[in-house]
Amino acid sequence: MSLSMFCKSIEVSLRTGPDIGDITPALKALIRESGIESGQLSAAMVGSTGSLTTIEYEPGVVDDLKRAINSLAPPGIDYAHEQAWHDGNGHSHVQAALLGPAIVLPIRNGSLKTGTWQQVVAINHDNRPRKRSIEVTITGTRS
Amino acid sequence: MSLSMFCKSIEVSLRTGPDIGDITPALKALIRESGIESGQLSAAMVGSTGSLTTIEYEPGVVDDLKRAINSLAPPGIDYAHEQAWHDGNGHSHVQAALLGPAIVLPIRNGSLKTGTWQQVVAINHDNRPRKRSIEVTITGTRS
Amino acid sequence: MSLSMFCKSIEVSLRTGPDIGDITPALKALIRESGIESGQLSAAMVGSTGSLTTIEYEPGVVDDLKRAINSLAPPGIDYAHEQAWHDGNGHSHVQAALLGPAIVLPIRNGSLKTGTWQQVVAINHDNRPRKRSIEVTITGTRS
Repeated sequence: MSLSMFCKSIEVSLRTGPDIGDITPALKALIRESGIESGQLSAAMVGSTGSLTTIEYEPGVVDDLKRAINSLAPPGIDYAHEQAWHDGNGHSHVQAALLGPAIVLPIRNGSLKTGTWQQVVAINHDNRPRKRSIEVTITGTRS
Repeated sequence: MSLSMFCKSIEVSLRTGPDIGDITPALKALIRESGIESGQLSAAMVGSTGSLTTIEYEPGVVDDLKRAINSLAPPGIDYAHEQAWHDGNGHSHVQAALLGPAIVLPIRNGSLKTGTWQQVVAINHDNRPRKRSIEVTITGTRS
Repeated sequence: MSLSMFCKSIEVSLRTGPDIGDITPALKALIRESGIESGQLSAAMVGSTGSLTTIEYEPGVVDDLKRAINSLAPPGIDYAHEQAWHDGNGHSHVQAALLGPAIVLPIRNGSLKTGTWQQVVAINHDNRPRKRSIEVTITGTRS
């Protein structure tokens, strides 16, 4: 069985950061479209004020994660970034760099292999709503 | 030389979180089994209260990392997650989301190419012992 | 179109940590050398006191990120790692484990597909200058 690769981007509209959106359904749709049964999916946020991770997409713990993100790099303190740009999003850049822009996840039996309560989320850290673009690369074997 | 892919899961039993286990020997065994000489290995924790990273697997610094993880999202404070679930593991979900569930590492000359003092570790953040499953995907060329 | 893979390492000299260097030009040169038009690049720091992420490579926000990294695991506090090794870099190991050693990014139209203000950076967390080695694995299709 030779390997195949499938590349496509998805877009997600997010509110002022930290805002967290569930992209699992969009990723699962791309896996179906790719026809790949076994392999891996990598996804990467395009832009320096966004990140990707997994969490149980439940309103309480999503709020808990937002609070933890804002304590890693609080919006209200001074950032050297502001001296050059004055755009008020120094914390957004630092938060996104700490969480990281990309993720790689397994595909088994034609679907994303994650835990039952484990969703893939895109995070907008910017200080304004953003439509974020995520590049998805699926590699593996077809049946 | 055409590319090959090899997919398999490993399991690791971990104590109440944060507990940190060395999975390097298990990953190296899978690489040997795969016969892949050059390429990459991706690994992902199945479940939303676990994570993967690398560290020198030495008892002192492993304890230091546990302390740092618990200061990112302390077990003893209030989490909105508890209002829905009352299972006491709000901090576990937040810690795991901040560290991230997955890792990608190089394979060179038929082995994992990491530093001498750099081991791959699985972390259980949950508030009870867990047998954790990790999906491993190895991609590359055979000799 | 069958898939190809290209593996090579790059080296970057960094000052006492946290020091942050832009490796985007080196990665783009490797993509050109690989001839791969569409796919992904994975990169991993060899060694347990370094990490990789993306950020806008602008002096102000790079300083902001250094400060945030040092607040995750401050250099001046006690680490159990020191009881075994006395090399003064307990914080370096913890910082690197929290940020993570590796990254995976998309290749589209023969180039790295990141945001305009999003650079790939290597971070040395060690308490002395280090020449760091990064293993790069590029997978995808040629045109």
